[in-house]
Amino acid sequence: MIKAAVLGATGYAGEELVRLLTNHSETSIELLVSRSFTGKKISEVYPSLSRVLDKECEELDIDKAAKCDVAFTALPHGASKTVIPSLIEKGLKVIDLSGDYRYDDVETYEEWYGEKHSSPELLKESVYGLPELHREKIKNARLIGNPGCYTTCSILGAAPLLACGIAETKNIIVDAKSGVTGAGRGLALQTSFCECTETAKAYKVTNHRHTSEIEQELSNIAGEKIMISFTPHLIPQKRGILSTIYINLKRESDASELTHIYRDFYKDEYFVRVKDTDSLPETKHVAGSNFVDIGVCYDKRLQRAVVVSALDNIVKGAAGQAVQNMNIMFGLDEKTALSGAGFYL
Amino acid sequence: MIKAAVLGATGYAGEELVRLLTNHSETSIELLVSRSFTGKKISEVYPSLSRVLDKECEELDIDKAAKCDVAFTALPHGASKTVIPSLIEKGLKVIDLSGDYRYDDVETYEEWYGEKHSSPELLKESVYGLPELHREKIKNARLIGNPGCYTTCSILGAAPLLACGIAETKNIIVDAKSGVTGAGRGLALQTSFCECTETAKAYKVTNHRHTSEIEQELSNIAGEKIMISFTPHLIPQKRGILSTIYINLKRESDASELTHIYRDFYKDEYFVRVKDTDSLPETKHVAGSNFVDIGVCYDKRLQRAVVVSALDNIVKGAAGQAVQNMNIMFGLDEKTALSGAGFYL
Amino acid sequence: MIKAAVLGATGYAGEELVRLLTNHSETSIELLVSRSFTGKKISEVYPSLSRVLDKECEELDIDKAAKCDVAFTALPHGASKTVIPSLIEKGLKVIDLSGDYRYDDVETYEEWYGEKHSSPELLKESVYGLPELHREKIKNARLIGNPGCYTTCSILGAAPLLACGIAETKNIIVDAKSGVTGAGRGLALQTSFCECTETAKAYKVTNHRHTSEIEQELSNIAGEKIMISFTPHLIPQKRGILSTIYINLKRESDASELTHIYRDFYKDEYFVRVKDTDSLPETKHVAGSNFVDIGVCYDKRLQRAVVVSALDNIVKGAAGQAVQNMNIMFGLDEKTALSGAGFYL
Amino acid sequence: MIKAAVLGATGYAGEELVRLLTNHSETSIELLVSRSFTGKKISEVYPSLSRVLDKECEELDIDKAAKCDVAFTALPHGASKTVIPSLIEKGLKVIDLSGDYRYDDVETYEEWYGEKHSSPELLKESVYGLPELHREKIKNARLIGNPGCYTTCSILGAAPLLACGIAETKNIIVDAKSGVTGAGRGLALQTSFCECTETAKAYKVTNHRHTSEIEQELSNIAGEKIMISFTPHLIPQKRGILSTIYINLKRESDASELTHIYRDFYKDEYFVRVKDTDSLPETKHVAGSNFVDIGVCYDKRLQRAVVVSALDNIVKGAAGQAVQNMNIMFGLDEKTALSGAGFYL
Repeated sequence: MIKAAVLGATGYAGEELVRLLTNHSETSIELLVSRSFTGKKISEVYPSLSRVLDKECEELDIDKAAKCDVAFTALPHGASKTVIPSLIEKGLKVIDLSGDYRYDDVETYEEWYGEKHSSPELLKESVYGLPELHREKIKNARLIGNPGCYTTCSILGAAPLLACGIAETKNIIVDAKSGVTGAGRGLALQTSFCECTETAKAYKVTNHRHTSEIEQELSNIAGEKIMISFTPHLIPQKRGILSTIYINLKRESDASELTHIYRDFYKDEYFVRVKDTDSLPETKHVAGSNFVDIGVCYDKRLQRAVVVSALDNIVKGAAGQAVQNMNIMFGLDEKTALSGAGFYL
Repeated sequence: MIKAAVLGATGYAGEELVRLLTNHSETSIELLVSRSFTGKKISEVYPSLSRVLDKECEELDIDKAAKCDVAFTALPHGASKTVIPSLIEKGLKVIDLSGDYRYDDVETYEEWYGEKHSSPELLKESVYGLPELHREKIKNARLIGNPGCYTTCSILGAAPLLACGIAETKNIIVDAKSGVTGAGRGLALQTSFCECTETAKAYKVTNHRHTSEIEQELSNIAGEKIMISFTPHLIPQKRGILSTIYINLKRESDASELTHIYRDFYKDEYFVRVKDTDSLPETKHVAGSNFVDIGVCYDKRLQRAVVVSALDNIVKGAAGQAVQNMNIMFGLDEKTALSGAGFYL
Repeated sequence: MIKAAVLGATGYAGEELVRLLTNHSETSIELLVSRSFTGKKISEVYPSLSRVLDKECEELDIDKAAKCDVAFTALPHGASKTVIPSLIEKGLKVIDLSGDYRYDDVETYEEWYGEKHSSPELLKESVYGLPELHREKIKNARLIGNPGCYTTCSILGAAPLLACGIAETKNIIVDAKSGVTGAGRGLALQTSFCECTETAKAYKVTNHRHTSEIEQELSNIAGEKIMISFTPHLIPQKRGILSTIYINLKRESDASELTHIYRDFYKDEYFVRVKDTDSLPETKHVAGSNFVDIGVCYDKRLQRAVVVSALDNIVKGAAGQAVQNMNIMFGLDEKTALSGAGFYL
Repeated sequence: MIKAAVLGATGYAGEELVRLLTNHSETSIELLVSRSFTGKKISEVYPSLSRVLDKECEELDIDKAAKCDVAFTALPHGASKTVIPSLIEKGLKVIDLSGDYRYDDVETYEEWYGEKHSSPELLKESVYGLPELHREKIKNARLIGNPGCYTTCSILGAAPLLACGIAETKNIIVDAKSGVTGAGRGLALQTSFCECTETAKAYKVTNHRHTSEIEQELSNIAGEKIMISFTPHLIPQKRGILSTIYINLKRESDASELTHIYRDFYKDEYFVRVKDTDSLPETKHVAGSNFVDIGVCYDKRLQRAVVVSALDNIVKGAAGQAVQNMNIMFGLDEKTALSGAGFYL
């Protein structure tokens, strides 16, 4: 059994990790770390876990964590930076759900996060944990920068067109809509029920940090520097990201050819489901599951592809992807604990 | 492997059955019957199942069904009555999710349903599939009348106080609130989004059919005929039943004693979780799971217990309970495919 | 023009007051007091008011307030107690939305609020601002204790049966469901979107303070001390209270007679709409309006009335009722600014 | 008093028209036409209107309608085409909420609607009822093609940049999110509560009819033929459209200049509120009101404007705009019955 520690177990990504790991046949949850709920059972914080996992949350003790094989760090931005080097030193594999270890170069990180990176050498070693693009590197990694929800949805939605060379690299627009779990469990007026039900809004227009992650990966695929418009929106639902992606094409095409390009690109990927040409994804089709659904349309008038991709932001966009990375790192079937259908209802 | 047929696979209870059975290690889904979607894959009707179960829906063919070991019938009221006798005759075990086989005596059925029962002898043989009360009978049953959502929630919420004799049997009030999945997938104005979001209402006040089921079971437990007020309400959420139950007591008590009565009554029941005296259930604690959560309060001023019980209407109130019954009938671990935590989010 | 001050203008009740008063032909809003948003325009706090009322919020200055004719105090519990005596002294009429001035006797207040009342003589003078029961006293009052949402809905729902003497006074149960605006704008985990959408729960079972208000008014009507079970629930919608009220009857009756009792009792009340015998209220029928809708059912088996009443908690249950009281106190048409239909959608 | 007829009074746009007109000081509702609910009071169909307007719905009788001054036609596509010529002939002014009379040339209509137009001469005479662009023509019009929700939101969001010549006319993307009332009251699986709560989706990608309306108006403003990507999305809320509009600029700019361009363009428009440079609109800021809120961002990296516009689809996007047009046509204050704030909650 793989011994797992979850740091930041009582946030939403943490809770979802715990939920997934309790169904994982090859893993035992050895340690739950939560600063806010030290001494409380996880099942007191999330009564849905009662009788399934009544384990107590603890303060972080590196020596205790050292007995584990893998640590999932779902800590607030900044907190992970001090903890992770210690865990790596103790020999754990670490899957970090923050933005700290997702960049190829330290400059991009520092430009978008507005601060120095505290462990640039670890950043260099870390692997961007998007299995559909970096599976081989993930296999041998000690430290994974687990991609976020917007980025996974947007990168996987755009990648095939850039990879095959049909896409213009200018004028790429990613208009993304997110459920409210993406904002985490911290209290804020804008995520209180009466403030965010029955309303929609855009936020951080032109300057959301995830822009840089998407650009990094798409640039790598295209072999040239790509800059995109990325606009996140908050919509009144709990789970789900829907990305609508606009990409001009270099030549005429049609829906059938574009769908074929996607099916071919993802032909070995269990978790990416490319829709038939006449249908489109919805976030409820992926809620609670690790799937990404992608539909592709062609606008003949404008010689433009309109791609719609959907995933569950706290599964494939956080906890599920983290488990998928763990499965790869430990040589397990990648689908372990992740193969099931989500909850349509 | 147990070969299972799901009749009425494309309704909400049917879909949830399919979702649960795809995670069931001892069962194979051999047959999906759907009149509305014959010839379509279940994963076209519910794209959440894509890649998990891409099986085609068929018209009912009794001879084909005969090759199965168990049939789940989630058919509209009436339809099940003609099909079930044929299935029983072919040697299948049948778990019926309709109201047709839930009554001890045909008179109660005919009084509340306003029509003759078409197979009264089978009704007599059938077992009321509430494992917490009738596990032994379920083990050897050929035909299970699988209880509905309101009834399971209300009966389990009231049973311990009646069983131990502390409850007055008059003036029992069950005020129940249900999510909208309880109304099924059929189109109706009152379940359209704009009509039922942001609103609450009572319906079928004083005359809902489930009243009679609750009364039957509570009367059996109390050993005397009990009549209750049962008021169903529709509230704007998908899943969940919350029953608030008012029961006068014969003598003074306190929250601690009442909680003890519940814990004792359900001490061997994995799926019933009795809350601590200072906490109460919520439907999100049970959503997506087969658990029933129960909290008990004592009103000292009025010598009255106020019990709150919660379950997921399409799991423990329909599909999950059906799987639990199947597990019992086939000698499996009762928790197979059902042990996991629900989705808090 | 009546000069009005709104103290606590940026809470939900305050904002709704402002919205209603901007449509009031006989009132000018002279003063908006908000401690949290001093110096900000109300339209910055609630952009829906932009261009309609771009008035700045101020700190409380009693001398400035003294130039007004009426003050609405929508302050946190406790804060109102020090301010209100000063306002009364300056000659303003005061309509207080807190619980501080709703009681006939100081003992009940102190029992349920667990603290001494700071101005018991003002409490004695104050009038319980439920126009349907106390219109004559309201006309000449200086200080109104404006009833809350649960209480208005429950009292108006039960009053007619108690007034006409057909009701048993024991075993009255009020099971109430509330939208989330009732919890106000303060941040709390239980009212954050992801925690309270898609879930239902009961809270403060057997000990909610509003119990005492309901008992006071119902006892007055019945001419004897009445104790009830009152159970509040939180359901995932913004506006609306639905109270389901169970009352045993002293003799047999029927739905038609009971409906007649209600229609007769409320025959001069514009804001109380009694439903036909075959229909029931919903909260969306009253959302955004000052109406209370009431439907009455008769349970022949149990000789029991089941009454369902609905109102908008921040209109008839707070701000609208406050405006109604103001209209009465200043001799205006009671319906001024309140006569319109709510928003069904 | 202006005598008004509402044809199609029981659909969502019709109901909202009725709600607004009951608050209109210069209008009397003379006639409510509803095929589905002939003989029923509008307040039986929408109990929110009870006591406010208990008028009966009738079948269409042109001679009876002829006694009115104005008719609002909120009929299903197609139905309006036969009725409107008769009403015009009888001397009524007609405000049509369908798509039939919104086009400058019959070819565009026939291309996007796939059928012959039945009264091309009336189409030629009709005026596109967007007061912010066509107020003068509306004043003297007999027949108004009242713009829809997506189009009003998108055109007003893009117009100022095109009018002042700073915008590139290629690569304009309009990504729009709509509440479910936009789909109307007809029953459909995709708008049932359990199917459309907690989910987001795109639909009619690349081929939604409103594309052509937006292109018509933007082309007129720019003085050249413009083609855009328009993608509608359905999100789980009742009211509201949010359009996110991407427009490349011909030269560098900044948020301050862009905001100034919008403020200048709409300086005389009560119903258009341009946000400060550091804030953005939300649909709840306009819900229930006739306002359009617009925020403008500048992406320095890409020399691109990102504009976000919001309105209430059944007010400014349907019924409110229709009343605004009526006010203009009859020489009334344009704000009559429309000046109030919406409901933030």
